[in-house]
Amino acid sequence: MVRAAVCGTEGRQFESVPVYQKMKNKKKLNPTKELPLGFEDRQENELLIRDFVISNIKEVMIKYGFQYLETPSFEYTESIGKFLPDKERPGEGVFSFKDENKWLSLRYDLTAPLARYVAKNFNEIPKPFKRYQLGTVWRNEKPGPGRFREFLQFDADYVGTKNLQADAELCVLISEILEKCGLEKADYTVKVSSRKLTEKLFEKLKIKSKEQILTTLRALDKIDRLGWNETQKLLGKGRKDKSGDYTKGANLNNDQIKIIENTLKNKNPDSEDVIEIMKIFEDYNFKNYKYDPSIIRGLEYYTGPIFEVNLNFDVKNLKGQTIQFGSIGGGGRYDNLVSNFGNLDCPATGISIGLDRLVFALMQKKDFKLKSVRPVMICVFDKNNTKKYVEILNKLRLCNISSEIYPGEGKLKKQMEYANKIGSPCVIFYGDDEIKKMEVKLRNLKTGDESSVKIENLVNEIKKLI
Amino acid sequence: MVRAAVCGTEGRQFESVPVYQKMKNKKKLNPTKELPLGFEDRQENELLIRDFVISNIKEVMIKYGFQYLETPSFEYTESIGKFLPDKERPGEGVFSFKDENKWLSLRYDLTAPLARYVAKNFNEIPKPFKRYQLGTVWRNEKPGPGRFREFLQFDADYVGTKNLQADAELCVLISEILEKCGLEKADYTVKVSSRKLTEKLFEKLKIKSKEQILTTLRALDKIDRLGWNETQKLLGKGRKDKSGDYTKGANLNNDQIKIIENTLKNKNPDSEDVIEIMKIFEDYNFKNYKYDPSIIRGLEYYTGPIFEVNLNFDVKNLKGQTIQFGSIGGGGRYDNLVSNFGNLDCPATGISIGLDRLVFALMQKKDFKLKSVRPVMICVFDKNNTKKYVEILNKLRLCNISSEIYPGEGKLKKQMEYANKIGSPCVIFYGDDEIKKMEVKLRNLKTGDESSVKIENLVNEIKKLI
Repeated sequence: MVRAAVCGTEGRQFESVPVYQKMKNKKKLNPTKELPLGFEDRQENELLIRDFVISNIKEVMIKYGFQYLETPSFEYTESIGKFLPDKERPGEGVFSFKDENKWLSLRYDLTAPLARYVAKNFNEIPKPFKRYQLGTVWRNEKPGPGRFREFLQFDADYVGTKNLQADAELCVLISEILEKCGLEKADYTVKVSSRKLTEKLFEKLKIKSKEQILTTLRALDKIDRLGWNETQKLLGKGRKDKSGDYTKGANLNNDQIKIIENTLKNKNPDSEDVIEIMKIFEDYNFKNYKYDPSIIRGLEYYTGPIFEVNLNFDVKNLKGQTIQFGSIGGGGRYDNLVSNFGNLDCPATGISIGLDRLVFALMQKKDFKLKSVRPVMICVFDKNNTKKYVEILNKLRLCNISSEIYPGEGKLKKQMEYANKIGSPCVIFYGDDEIKKMEVKLRNLKTGDESSVKIENLVNEIKKLI
Repeated sequence: MVRAAVCGTEGRQFESVPVYQKMKNKKKLNPTKELPLGFEDRQENELLIRDFVISNIKEVMIKYGFQYLETPSFEYTESIGKFLPDKERPGEGVFSFKDENKWLSLRYDLTAPLARYVAKNFNEIPKPFKRYQLGTVWRNEKPGPGRFREFLQFDADYVGTKNLQADAELCVLISEILEKCGLEKADYTVKVSSRKLTEKLFEKLKIKSKEQILTTLRALDKIDRLGWNETQKLLGKGRKDKSGDYTKGANLNNDQIKIIENTLKNKNPDSEDVIEIMKIFEDYNFKNYKYDPSIIRGLEYYTGPIFEVNLNFDVKNLKGQTIQFGSIGGGGRYDNLVSNFGNLDCPATGISIGLDRLVFALMQKKDFKLKSVRPVMICVFDKNNTKKYVEILNKLRLCNISSEIYPGEGKLKKQMEYANKIGSPCVIFYGDDEIKKMEVKLRNLKTGDESSVKIENLVNEIKKLI
């Protein structure tokens, strides 16, 4: 076979992409301008708030002594597949490719790749190992309004310790991050429970079939979204959702469902690990938590304390309706995950925050201001004077003033339309007359005011104006 | 079909992932700890330098008046596929999935998604539209040493203008970014040429077959890596590489190859657009560029000026061998890309920097220091004293001193091993005696010195030490 090469890289056949073979037969491609469902473009305002959140996260992480790590987007499917949320449907929910003879998957969380990293570097890493990571994760799920297939996540984990101080400190550090981002204590709650409680519950319920346990867990994980009444259906025979889809229930009887209801109502923590964590919270003088046995966490790998971070203020969806926003993240202890890679004794605990969701909520907080800077624009009267315009431009940029020479080709009217469109605070006219007088005309685009300014005063005048 | 649900999200069948159907039959999964070829874990040192580079980029972008934008990782294949580097092999080189009835691909650059974004938002965006983006791109190419399938890229583009000042300013801004990152003028060169020159060359060569043109372009794009002698083979009959793979050549005759050689040697720009850009460089007093007709750029969509950013200092590969590092990025004018989505007149120009490559090179620059902060550790003598330890911890953290209480469960010897392993600058002993005296013992882990410090002086003592 003859191989061609592009961009200095040898090409190769890729088995699972027969896309164009089909397309070739069509005469004209009509590329769509739309995005696939579950993906979206993000604008400056959102990105700036996200950057602000991320820089707060990094500061707190350094202060708390965590190491910064990044694992790649792809892992061998077998390395992360075993720990998928739902073992019953392990091939679903992820984006996978066949590569040579093995399957690769885009990570669906940052925990499974961390377990792989720890196993790979087990002898080199300190124990305990405290790492944080920021990264995109992908879930190939049925997209819907507000449901995405790509998320930016922040994770912090303690690996290699059973010390519950680690679990407690995760809750403390998340609080510090949220408050650095401008939230007040009343704005959020860290909910705490334990997977051990759930295990005890299953003993009381006398169900042992793995399938029934998992179906029950999944049902309970939905209380937040569906409420107790609908959840009861999922615990019983099953439930038909609005779209008409029927979800088979866990087939519990009324007595069993009653036992669950009572457990969830119990306000006193009935689990040693939760009691210990609450004691450590006291040592930290950390009060912004709530014991809540109804938090479940969907992932099967948890073995001890579990947490969920909830926002308490109103959030509106894109249609302007106030919605029950629910959790922006959570986590818990997963003492057996790393041992899947061999006989490695490596208890661990971690927490994740969904940054897109957090940013979405923050954008709606009153008094949350982060304005994007728009450039001062220098008008172009004569291309031959570019050198002169650049002199002004460099003066401004040297003082870190966002600025540009009109980058298009239009006449003055078009230039002004452009300046208004981008939200420029002011424009500078520097025509032949002004050049002679060593001054510029400065027009404030908010007020329309225009004034002559000596070149040497320009920076100060503009600083007053922006 | 019964549908189960995980994590509050309805699941669904995904056609192209039959992974586990096969795996299920095996008795035990043996998850590998290894990463697929072409992907890698990144450590703190590299990530901190990357953050430094990114924050410089953002500062410069704001100063130059660019808008921050983010498009998602996935696009419909038809939206970006048409603009793949190599139209002859359009299904290759990208990671694609079948989704319902359409194919999705992970973006292979940030330009094709920008064209899609501009087409989608054509009526809303300002014209010209100046945007920058930071994001991962994926290429499903044959991985090899130092060749990755996932890259972090920075792109800046001017969309909707033919004004060559845009092209010139891209070169200026890249220089400002590189110098902000610590490079000196001698460390890098911006090479400039024009696709128009290449077109003229093809007229002289009298070749018109698209296939021959593309093969010639691809061959020329390799001069940097292969040198002129090997490139000549690719221009002629063909070339066998070290691995034994044979690449068919462009089948040019000796006269044609001679014409190419002469064109590439010509030191005087023979293209109007390059001459105009050079004049604008003069207006900007920008000198760190070089006209170089041998730069080609692999992508087919370029229509005018093209640029390449090269580093001039020695870089070593992972084996310690000094290598020809070559370009860290480049770009050019692509006046017809957006019009693929319909009759949109939207000339554009842009530049990309490969951040992983830039960071790799920066890490090898002498005098480039960015140290990771490691936490001060408070030893644990008695868990019941946690509250006391937290008092010390909060004092330090309030002053932004990276610090932690030993997070594991070991005795003092293990605690000291841990502190040394993580590179802690000092440890704090706060036993019963010290608590009574309201002081701590502070041990400097670099010198081994130990001293008693009053609690009220602790922050200052530690600040001296780190």
